[in-house]
Amino acid sequence: MSHTPAPAPLSYEQAGVNYDLIDPLKIAAQRAAASTASQLAGHGFSEVAASRGESAYVVDVGPFYLASIVECLGSKALVADEMARLTGRSWYDGIAQDTIAMAINDLITVGATPLVVQAYWAAGGSEWFEDAARAQALVAGWKKACEVCGVAWGGGETPALAGIVEAGRIDLAASCTGIVNPKSRLSVGDKLGAGDAIVLLASSGIHANGLSLARKLAERLPEGYLTEVAPGLSFGAALLAPTVLYSPVTEALAKAGIVPHYSANVTGHGWRKLLRHPKALTYRIHTVPPVPAVLKFIAEQAGHDAREAYSTLNMGAGFALYVDAKDAQRTVEIAKANGIEAWVAGTVEEGPKRLIVEPLGVTYGDEDLQLR
Amino acid sequence: MSHTPAPAPLSYEQAGVNYDLIDPLKIAAQRAAASTASQLAGHGFSEVAASRGESAYVVDVGPFYLASIVECLGSKALVADEMARLTGRSWYDGIAQDTIAMAINDLITVGATPLVVQAYWAAGGSEWFEDAARAQALVAGWKKACEVCGVAWGGGETPALAGIVEAGRIDLAASCTGIVNPKSRLSVGDKLGAGDAIVLLASSGIHANGLSLARKLAERLPEGYLTEVAPGLSFGAALLAPTVLYSPVTEALAKAGIVPHYSANVTGHGWRKLLRHPKALTYRIHTVPPVPAVLKFIAEQAGHDAREAYSTLNMGAGFALYVDAKDAQRTVEIAKANGIEAWVAGTVEEGPKRLIVEPLGVTYGDEDLQLR
Repeated sequence: MSHTPAPAPLSYEQAGVNYDLIDPLKIAAQRAAASTASQLAGHGFSEVAASRGESAYVVDVGPFYLASIVECLGSKALVADEMARLTGRSWYDGIAQDTIAMAINDLITVGATPLVVQAYWAAGGSEWFEDAARAQALVAGWKKACEVCGVAWGGGETPALAGIVEAGRIDLAASCTGIVNPKSRLSVGDKLGAGDAIVLLASSGIHANGLSLARKLAERLPEGYLTEVAPGLSFGAALLAPTVLYSPVTEALAKAGIVPHYSANVTGHGWRKLLRHPKALTYRIHTVPPVPAVLKFIAEQAGHDAREAYSTLNMGAGFALYVDAKDAQRTVEIAKANGIEAWVAGTVEEGPKRLIVEPLGVTYGDEDLQLR
Repeated sequence: MSHTPAPAPLSYEQAGVNYDLIDPLKIAAQRAAASTASQLAGHGFSEVAASRGESAYVVDVGPFYLASIVECLGSKALVADEMARLTGRSWYDGIAQDTIAMAINDLITVGATPLVVQAYWAAGGSEWFEDAARAQALVAGWKKACEVCGVAWGGGETPALAGIVEAGRIDLAASCTGIVNPKSRLSVGDKLGAGDAIVLLASSGIHANGLSLARKLAERLPEGYLTEVAPGLSFGAALLAPTVLYSPVTEALAKAGIVPHYSANVTGHGWRKLLRHPKALTYRIHTVPPVPAVLKFIAEQAGHDAREAYSTLNMGAGFALYVDAKDAQRTVEIAKANGIEAWVAGTVEEGPKRLIVEPLGVTYGDEDLQLR
């Protein structure tokens, strides 16, 4: 597929994202945040402590749990901007879905039903809103994604932030609030254990993580985003495949009486996210999903071996469900019935904390994912 | 106070914020958002329709109402950055409070008790986090503001967004989730009517609205942010007085059995926000709070008459409570007991939708605030 000679390797850090600088602040913030949990007692409530450090924060408010989150799109909008220039059409309908997916797919990991999404659209200046077609695409895509997820779009914030957001750009984020109801749907890993099956749900491509790397690669491709990654499919269009919204699957599982023991949204840090739960367990993968053409292309162009590629990109698996082994096949069927390919991909075993991807001969250890 | 000769006038639009460009998108988004309310029926819930277009979105989830919001700081961080350069210390503890105040002070308008805040800190690059003192000030200020408001800091998002957020800058926002409990605390204006008293709560200064204008003014002052607006108080330091957190007052009112008939957070559009509710009512103000030195200075420097100043800035009133007349004096006392100056400032009357600020001889009509 590659139209260029063997390229120089490009790491994720070279692409401009240095987690070593960000993670200490994240950890300091997490500690300060944890200390505020006691505030809930004044209202007669308490946090679900196991949700600290998980993808969504959960509070016990009595009749059910309350879950909330804010999530950022990241730099995918820059690809949409460039592709709009190259193709003459707006890609912001898909960008809207991506932004909502970032929040929804995190919120559902704890077993929550998303109820309300709020839009955060911070433009580099009032001028951003002059392109009415782009603005309307953003609105239409946002509405449609809310409908797919069965959430109400509550409102939001559309500031013009000249001097903070770059001129002509927009910083997109979404907050989402949901409830875990009944409370037995809570999924924060306490039931996660040896013998569980790991079901992987297909991604549509890069989703919204790894775009810094992809953008750097586009810069050095002679045809840039118009380089074909598959016949008739440009790199740019492939990158802009909207992120899969997984909440229809998790809601259908709940209706079928299947409560995952744990869930992981495969985003930044790629498959290392499968190691997210703090328990010491070994995750053994025997089946690896087919790799979307765009991710194969990125790995090739960046000179990533399997270990590096799977540690950064989703490589075809956008969401992981850890379920009772007896529910594994039905989980796959329910995902497929909702239009999402899925695989019983592995098992949870007693053993040191590590992820063994057998078909690739790759193992990640606890030291590869330090987010707490 | 002014150290410069009579300046050329500067309107809010000249300062770079053109609401005419943003408001059509806001309205299109609000309509699309409104159409998604039906999604809640699939979960057995429904929205509180009267909260559409209000400062926070409210859903009836059965035992109580759920309220949520996302809010942006705006450009105040740019003042903090410049003042850090001029004074050698970080101002981000106050900036953190400002950001939380933007969300909390909106959420409480509907009668909600804020429970969880999520942090959205989008930096222009990983380098932003290298200034550990600044990052720690942000963390410490965020934690303290959460404690003042009795909310748990749930977590958040700290992306590095090079190419979207400008290098060296940070885009700060907060999302907040709360509940209206008991449901009788819901305050969306249905009880608002003639005879109600208007209680105004003091602001600490500019809060986080009008900063674009203030920054433009600083550019043309010979001493910039170091210009004194009061003896020993620089323009920059005065601008950076943290926004008042009003939730301790609204929670204390609830404990005292006072349910406001309506509330308005006085932010963008200044006192025109007092006209926020769609009902046709006349709001007559007989008492105007003292104007903080920094706002007096801005109005003078920008050449604003009272009408323009009060239509843009809070002019000393950061929050308005519309209460039963018999509760007005007690509302003032409860605010004062919580350390916030307050005034019984006016009354609600039958009549066309307008705000009459009698001491200033200024009237705003419905046409002055078109946000729905």
